[in-house]
Amino acid sequence: MSFENILYSVDDRIATIALNRPDRLNAVSEAMIDEIIAALDRADTDDDVRVVVVRANGRLFCAGADLSQGASTFDYDSRAVGGSDSPVRPDGSVDYSHEKVRDGAGRLTLRLYRGLKPVIGAIHGAAVGVGITMTLAMDARFAAADTRFGMVFTRRGIVPEGASTWFLQRIVGLDRALDWCLTGRIISASEALEAGLVRSLHTADELLPAAYAYAREIAVNTAPVSVALTRQMLWQMAGARHPMEAHRLDSRGVYARGRSDDAREGVSSFLEKRPPTFPNRVSRDMPDYFPWWDEPEYS
Amino acid sequence: MSFENILYSVDDRIATIALNRPDRLNAVSEAMIDEIIAALDRADTDDDVRVVVVRANGRLFCAGADLSQGASTFDYDSRAVGGSDSPVRPDGSVDYSHEKVRDGAGRLTLRLYRGLKPVIGAIHGAAVGVGITMTLAMDARFAAADTRFGMVFTRRGIVPEGASTWFLQRIVGLDRALDWCLTGRIISASEALEAGLVRSLHTADELLPAAYAYAREIAVNTAPVSVALTRQMLWQMAGARHPMEAHRLDSRGVYARGRSDDAREGVSSFLEKRPPTFPNRVSRDMPDYFPWWDEPEYS
Amino acid sequence: MSFENILYSVDDRIATIALNRPDRLNAVSEAMIDEIIAALDRADTDDDVRVVVVRANGRLFCAGADLSQGASTFDYDSRAVGGSDSPVRPDGSVDYSHEKVRDGAGRLTLRLYRGLKPVIGAIHGAAVGVGITMTLAMDARFAAADTRFGMVFTRRGIVPEGASTWFLQRIVGLDRALDWCLTGRIISASEALEAGLVRSLHTADELLPAAYAYAREIAVNTAPVSVALTRQMLWQMAGARHPMEAHRLDSRGVYARGRSDDAREGVSSFLEKRPPTFPNRVSRDMPDYFPWWDEPEYS
Repeated sequence: MSFENILYSVDDRIATIALNRPDRLNAVSEAMIDEIIAALDRADTDDDVRVVVVRANGRLFCAGADLSQGASTFDYDSRAVGGSDSPVRPDGSVDYSHEKVRDGAGRLTLRLYRGLKPVIGAIHGAAVGVGITMTLAMDARFAAADTRFGMVFTRRGIVPEGASTWFLQRIVGLDRALDWCLTGRIISASEALEAGLVRSLHTADELLPAAYAYAREIAVNTAPVSVALTRQMLWQMAGARHPMEAHRLDSRGVYARGRSDDAREGVSSFLEKRPPTFPNRVSRDMPDYFPWWDEPEYS
Repeated sequence: MSFENILYSVDDRIATIALNRPDRLNAVSEAMIDEIIAALDRADTDDDVRVVVVRANGRLFCAGADLSQGASTFDYDSRAVGGSDSPVRPDGSVDYSHEKVRDGAGRLTLRLYRGLKPVIGAIHGAAVGVGITMTLAMDARFAAADTRFGMVFTRRGIVPEGASTWFLQRIVGLDRALDWCLTGRIISASEALEAGLVRSLHTADELLPAAYAYAREIAVNTAPVSVALTRQMLWQMAGARHPMEAHRLDSRGVYARGRSDDAREGVSSFLEKRPPTFPNRVSRDMPDYFPWWDEPEYS
Repeated sequence: MSFENILYSVDDRIATIALNRPDRLNAVSEAMIDEIIAALDRADTDDDVRVVVVRANGRLFCAGADLSQGASTFDYDSRAVGGSDSPVRPDGSVDYSHEKVRDGAGRLTLRLYRGLKPVIGAIHGAAVGVGITMTLAMDARFAAADTRFGMVFTRRGIVPEGASTWFLQRIVGLDRALDWCLTGRIISASEALEAGLVRSLHTADELLPAAYAYAREIAVNTAPVSVALTRQMLWQMAGARHPMEAHRLDSRGVYARGRSDDAREGVSSFLEKRPPTFPNRVSRDMPDYFPWWDEPEYS
């Protein structure tokens, strides 16, 4: 599998997905989204990958949509990857169930949501429009101190995409989300830090080292199957009605994982004050109750 | 339509609702709630209104219920606006579905929740009881630096109203909400700021200019239909189980808005570095999938 | 009822549950969980108790599971309190509905979730593993300045228990919860304070006075029935889909409590600027619509 819009590499248990359309300011296309999703699929099925870092080549992370088509930029019919089927019916009404109407940024954030490996964003320069929304389903965001963020949709006459109205408020709170989305204004890196959108700010030189250091902290110290389960539990419980849902998952997890070789190694390494070497692998050792959820369908 | 408990005016695309019972410290009555709701209805159907500011005349914003009836203040039967039907059945049980039992503050916050225009609270002096709960479904709160807030219900022997147990924790977090509601203590403006309840604090003179400046930022730069959709998406996603719910809305919104004249103007004005002039209007140009929700019924 | 793992006492309207296995660093056993639940039941049914403080004897609050069994610590079969039934079926599959698979920490946090009296944690030294998760369903946490916290599960090869993936993110936000749970790292008291996990930090000498002062603020000023209702409303609304759910509860509560003797005393004492003496009792004066919910079953 070769990519044209991104670069993919694995080193020291960390996969890197680099947005690689620097001449277009990493403008996101449906093709780039398909490639990021394919890269995430590869990382999830590769036991040599513990954590994924998403970064970007060029002057900035992602300035959003490619505006080179001018006024028709957001006209979905002109953005469709292939085919000529229009979702507009002969009577003028729209068939919203049609494949081509589905928002690409949302396909990506929903894919991140159900992933098995932690994904860390290393953001520099600008993260505007889909440049910010694609990061909201990641597990951590680190940024260069001069990064500009923007949920600019209301200023472009459209609406927030990438399921960002669900994700953003669970990271920065409802009030901040209302502020950023209703005004559409540009957010400074320091405001993003204060709001909790990003973990920490760095000079341009120190951004990637900080993101990889955090990735290594997870890769070195934790059990991959435990991390895959915990990631799913946290994201799925974000919208759960009652803590009983978590209790059911915990009870299964505590039992199934408690008698695993990983649990023996976890306690032994701790008591022996040495780094752990967890034997279980995501590809073969997920507990029998996993996956426990019915994926909601797009409709 | 003339109002007796509030003043309503529109200027420069901003509607103002001013609580206007200064001699009663703007104590909230069912009549005042009916008038605020009517004013919000008027603002939502008036395309000349982009944003609503709620403020108050007199010494303070709202001190809560009118305690002039003394110990029977919260006895609902004595508060009923009209009619003599009691919700108490002959056998002593209560018919909670009865119209008269419905909490007025909740009627107001639910009306704010489903509104189409951003509502900004400009709060001074005191916002206690219904004085604070009515503001929790607004999109932003600005306050004078000497304002006192209070979820005082447990100290009066009653319970929080205005659906505030749902709203408050989504603004300030569950732990703060527990603290404020269980103790019933008075909250200083600086604690309200730190908790994220209010956006910023101001001198008495600068409060209204700050609130109107924020309102203008939305009015001048954003597309009204985009704002109406975005506001609903954010509030409805606050309790949504799964991001797929947002993905469905985004996909419809991105398609329908992307081919709108507003989207063309949004991109063109951005590329031409000029202020936008969005042609679409809330009264006639909401997309065909709007409204997408079934309003839950009171029962 | 006598306890072997905890101490229980009531003084000045405040019940104290003290974890009392200092020689085991208050390692939590199923027996200790049963006793804490029994003590909470006693507090909820005793009108002389307004608030519960949970503290610990010995060098630290709770270091988590008792690791004296070494590598098999988390092997649930070896932890089972009694009986020899294994949830493993002859064919090797696991019967997760089996009583013995149910997570003890979750039984405790769900019991806290549905309680009627505020519960305050006074934490010193360490709160790691079940030591922290058991506190997440409490209404407030105060800590000594040298306390170390840790959601260390991924480092032990297991998963977070106590329904903590639901509770934690509603206190500290989703991003912090992901950080703490995915890395499994130790959290300093100052980070816990900044994240909002604990209300304030104290010297070892001042921790308990601070926790009891807070408990007294609730005990002295508020109506017990109002507090019991408000506590349930806040916790249950944390996962509620729509504010209409709160509106229904508010409307019932405002009516039923508004005509109570407590409401008369609440207003009268306020107008007379004297401490209130609320006559209603949780044991006999909960409104007729309480409990309003169907408890979800473990399955």
